Amino acid sequence: MNSLGRNFRITTFGESHGKALGVVIDGCPPGIPLAEGDIQPFLDRRRPGKSPLESPRKEPDRVEILSGIFGGKTTGAPIALLVANRDVREEDYAELEEIFRPGHADFTWQAKYGIRDHRGGGRSSGRETVARVAAGAVAAGYLASRGIKISGRILEIHGKRDPDAMTREIEKAKAEGDSVGGIAEVLVTGCPAGLGDPVFSKLDALLAHALMGIGAVKGVEIGEGFAAARMKGSKHNDAMTGDGFATNHAGGILGGISTGQEIVARIAVKPTPSIAKTQRTVDRKGREVSISIRGRHDPCIVPRILPVAEAMVALVIMDAYLEQARYRALPGAGSLAGGDA
Amino acid sequence: MNSLGRNFRITTFGESHGKALGVVIDGCPPGIPLAEGDIQPFLDRRRPGKSPLESPRKEPDRVEILSGIFGGKTTGAPIALLVANRDVREEDYAELEEIFRPGHADFTWQAKYGIRDHRGGGRSSGRETVARVAAGAVAAGYLASRGIKISGRILEIHGKRDPDAMTREIEKAKAEGDSVGGIAEVLVTGCPAGLGDPVFSKLDALLAHALMGIGAVKGVEIGEGFAAARMKGSKHNDAMTGDGFATNHAGGILGGISTGQEIVARIAVKPTPSIAKTQRTVDRKGREVSISIRGRHDPCIVPRILPVAEAMVALVIMDAYLEQARYRALPGAGSLAGGDA
Amino acid sequence: MNSLGRNFRITTFGESHGKALGVVIDGCPPGIPLAEGDIQPFLDRRRPGKSPLESPRKEPDRVEILSGIFGGKTTGAPIALLVANRDVREEDYAELEEIFRPGHADFTWQAKYGIRDHRGGGRSSGRETVARVAAGAVAAGYLASRGIKISGRILEIHGKRDPDAMTREIEKAKAEGDSVGGIAEVLVTGCPAGLGDPVFSKLDALLAHALMGIGAVKGVEIGEGFAAARMKGSKHNDAMTGDGFATNHAGGILGGISTGQEIVARIAVKPTPSIAKTQRTVDRKGREVSISIRGRHDPCIVPRILPVAEAMVALVIMDAYLEQARYRALPGAGSLAGGDA
Amino acid sequence: MNSLGRNFRITTFGESHGKALGVVIDGCPPGIPLAEGDIQPFLDRRRPGKSPLESPRKEPDRVEILSGIFGGKTTGAPIALLVANRDVREEDYAELEEIFRPGHADFTWQAKYGIRDHRGGGRSSGRETVARVAAGAVAAGYLASRGIKISGRILEIHGKRDPDAMTREIEKAKAEGDSVGGIAEVLVTGCPAGLGDPVFSKLDALLAHALMGIGAVKGVEIGEGFAAARMKGSKHNDAMTGDGFATNHAGGILGGISTGQEIVARIAVKPTPSIAKTQRTVDRKGREVSISIRGRHDPCIVPRILPVAEAMVALVIMDAYLEQARYRALPGAGSLAGGDA
Repeated sequence: MNSLGRNFRITTFGESHGKALGVVIDGCPPGIPLAEGDIQPFLDRRRPGKSPLESPRKEPDRVEILSGIFGGKTTGAPIALLVANRDVREEDYAELEEIFRPGHADFTWQAKYGIRDHRGGGRSSGRETVARVAAGAVAAGYLASRGIKISGRILEIHGKRDPDAMTREIEKAKAEGDSVGGIAEVLVTGCPAGLGDPVFSKLDALLAHALMGIGAVKGVEIGEGFAAARMKGSKHNDAMTGDGFATNHAGGILGGISTGQEIVARIAVKPTPSIAKTQRTVDRKGREVSISIRGRHDPCIVPRILPVAEAMVALVIMDAYLEQARYRALPGAGSLAGGDA
Repeated sequence: MNSLGRNFRITTFGESHGKALGVVIDGCPPGIPLAEGDIQPFLDRRRPGKSPLESPRKEPDRVEILSGIFGGKTTGAPIALLVANRDVREEDYAELEEIFRPGHADFTWQAKYGIRDHRGGGRSSGRETVARVAAGAVAAGYLASRGIKISGRILEIHGKRDPDAMTREIEKAKAEGDSVGGIAEVLVTGCPAGLGDPVFSKLDALLAHALMGIGAVKGVEIGEGFAAARMKGSKHNDAMTGDGFATNHAGGILGGISTGQEIVARIAVKPTPSIAKTQRTVDRKGREVSISIRGRHDPCIVPRILPVAEAMVALVIMDAYLEQARYRALPGAGSLAGGDA
Repeated sequence: MNSLGRNFRITTFGESHGKALGVVIDGCPPGIPLAEGDIQPFLDRRRPGKSPLESPRKEPDRVEILSGIFGGKTTGAPIALLVANRDVREEDYAELEEIFRPGHADFTWQAKYGIRDHRGGGRSSGRETVARVAAGAVAAGYLASRGIKISGRILEIHGKRDPDAMTREIEKAKAEGDSVGGIAEVLVTGCPAGLGDPVFSKLDALLAHALMGIGAVKGVEIGEGFAAARMKGSKHNDAMTGDGFATNHAGGILGGISTGQEIVARIAVKPTPSIAKTQRTVDRKGREVSISIRGRHDPCIVPRILPVAEAMVALVIMDAYLEQARYRALPGAGSLAGGDA
Repeated sequence: MNSLGRNFRITTFGESHGKALGVVIDGCPPGIPLAEGDIQPFLDRRRPGKSPLESPRKEPDRVEILSGIFGGKTTGAPIALLVANRDVREEDYAELEEIFRPGHADFTWQAKYGIRDHRGGGRSSGRETVARVAAGAVAAGYLASRGIKISGRILEIHGKRDPDAMTREIEKAKAEGDSVGGIAEVLVTGCPAGLGDPVFSKLDALLAHALMGIGAVKGVEIGEGFAAARMKGSKHNDAMTGDGFATNHAGGILGGISTGQEIVARIAVKPTPSIAKTQRTVDRKGREVSISIRGRHDPCIVPRILPVAEAMVALVIMDAYLEQARYRALPGAGSLAGGDA
């Protein structure tokens, strides 16, 4: 379904070449100052066309608040955010109506629904993430006011870890009509201990769910992640001292609950599936065809996924923060819970 | 919370050293043959003490069906499954009441709830997964009758990929009073195209959620996973031919929806946190202490996690299968959806 | 929260004097023809100002579809519907900022959130039901195509059951600066047997939830309702014959599951709380004040609640229909379930 | 489905003549003293065979806590409660395997699932409510410690409001081989203002859902209920004064949110469908047959439904209380919300 979260629950809608993208936020605490100007900078970071290495689609991505605000503050009522599509070019996609693009959701969407909006991928387009970023901005703003900060960075592009080398890899891919992937990391600082629920709502499980739910993500890891599989327990365990944890191999989460340390999550992003290079594929009747996708695409999607990943982490932390807030308020439980969350 | 799934919804309960572990399955289709003998083999695979390299805790782990079956078949009513704890030794854990074990949920549980059942980790113990395996067995049985099979295998223990070498790594760790982690893979064959929902309920996102929700898992990847970050689009994209997909770099999922190919998921498992080697930690008052955990622990948890990971995958696929079943039944939608799911 | 339904899930937003009201429908089956013209007639029935006995607020209530439609058909993606507010008069409500209107949610909203949009009641206004009616129209259209029809009628206004007498009661109340309530009934014909889930999702429980969730509703009954409390079992039980049920005292639902007969639900609607007659109340500081509400109000809300009640019933039946559709698709279960739903 | 509640979430299971009935409570606050002795008195009130006017089925209904308690207190982990069935007589129901009892869920269950546990109604039996009462006891205990009390009373049996007359109606019905219904009321005192959410989770909507979900209930009303339909606004509106509300026609809820006054809910209970009098019905092949139900039934179910109705109200109030607790804990919101809930 198109909703995420229990307490700070978002429901998104919209297609790449439809009228608009939007999100309804349900459960935002009342009394929080919120204006369009608080959200816009997050959308601007995600917006296409900021550099020659990004899709040249011209979208101002201006957010409009439709509801839930009164006198400049949230009221507890649902907040609807709308971003109109401006640079819609249906005609660019006419030839794709009958063809399944490799690496895209064209085939699976058709298999699932028996009908599909082929214009730029319709709802399966990365453009759908505009709504996530808008909602994430509201969450991030609230969390920042509580001292919790979320920040992302690119670790690797096509195997390179030096920034200049990363740029060269993207330029090279673009010149070849190809694309490259990479690895990004999102960090959460200032997060109190106690967020996350054991068993099926572990904080790391919720983060994995949210991050793997970004279109191009193929892997998620927390703390040492896959490297932990090659470590010994005596090395991986984080010793505790009178001053707190001595190390943070766990990535800020133990037993699915935050430790109070920095939370560390990493994602593997696949190379953009839309490439100019000729590829083999089939049409809806199963006939083999060749395809070369010439349009407005990013040769590497990692930089533009970064604000999306940060938004997803903000949404998860916000939801867990509100979940835990309840305990603080309850007599008995409140006094025992350490007071931090 | 302690529930998972939308259509085949499980709710688990129980502690490591409480009376019993159990699960309520809500939404199981009616008319399916089901007996305790269908579930028991799955629990037997997960049971401790099958080899000298596993915890020697003596638990027969006999499952009892309390409800939901009539005349040997499911009725559509909730199915409650119970597994009694037999080998409970509260006294083994007396010294742990005041101490936070490194790498365990002791500290975070205390921070969250202000109270904790310290006996063997209480509900944060891996023993909780008994309930998941029992529920997963019901799902796996149903899926098998539809031609969908789930199977897991260990890929790597402490960096070694040869079976004999894996065993040696575990033996060595045990002799040292230490522990090792590893990597395991779960495959789904026979899965029809069309399972999974776009955006926030992508099939890979649900798998990541379910697998990262297993205690010791620190990373999840689908298909090429982290390796995809170092590939080019022209290589990673799976070409389509008249005979179907030419390759399966995507791991059987595109745009969050199953392609009909084999689904491939991998998990990184951390080394068991309970080790005999002396570790530094603190007690509830923050005083520094040393701890050497001598009890009934597995020097490597990967082999026993395997049936748990399979169970989690079975639960996710089952839930998505029932979700998609609805479309097949609807006039209009049904005829277009390809008929496979 | 602001969502309703499991399978055909709606999330509404908007305030009486904000920019717009809207709803996101998640889970609508794909491939269904849908245009704004299919929804508009339902909104027109609910629209104010159709007669001198209704609020004179001038709202065209034009619905706009923002997403989820391609080529005139639903795609399975969320459908966002928007209705702009046109006749907004903030200034009419300036004096109400500090005063709690009797019979309204002013006091309780303030107690809950500590902040409130006082303009026409903000989100607690009956205007919020525009979004419900829009969503209900989509459900009703789908159900009609399956032969399921929902229709409502007014049974009683201020105790009178004759239509002319009803009108006179409303006119009299209006002339007195007062208001009256009444009783309405919603019928569902063509509903197959088997809808609704036992225990907590009984069809009658879901109907009661949906109908009692309409602002002015104070009572809900099914079939004989409160009259059943004065009947004997031998009279209330509906005998079965070879031709079906002989009577329908149960109102089409037994054990929470539809019988295949007509479903009969009734609601008690309180008199409109906004009246011109002087009333005693308090302001936010607890000081006693008098209030006479002169604005754009309906002296009797029953006629305008009718399309809302129908919409709520349509949403519940639609949700249960999709829930049950799953069973039809499952081998084994499908063949046994009688084939009707 | 078989779950109720968002924050204090219960999942029930079990059949009338199966091994046991049970419930898992998820979301109970940690640190609350809880023992079987706190729950047992509630089950004892609901237990059959306490008087000659009740079913003579012999069930001790002893509750067993399986999980979630440590050192006599809740831990925040799920609490599983089990009540074994003792007086199971499958043979009493052999003749009902092929026959649909009038007024029961036999026909609809068969239509829905294609299979049914006919022994005493299986899961559609009123015996299922044992689990609700057990869970409600935990909620009621918690609420009582916060000063919130829930109490029920019978208002009317077969139209009679005098206690002696009520008893005579039941005796007469029993002697005739017939049954009678009635009306009961549940009151909540000490409930703070601010509980309940607007729109679809209104407190009255949740109460209606919970109460209509009791098997024999055919109507629910809040405050004046159906009588409100015959009142004028000037009479029904509850004036506010410096000392609080002057009246309570609304029944303690305005706009779906509690006012801080007494909450008043009433239910209409149908006559017990199981009667000795001969009735016409059909068997599974649609052949007409006569049936006289001689077994262990209550000629009037109202007295035994009372503790069930109280339990349902306790569960709803508990859930809303925990929902609202979150706001108290949030800086900003907390200070504005009036501090009461």
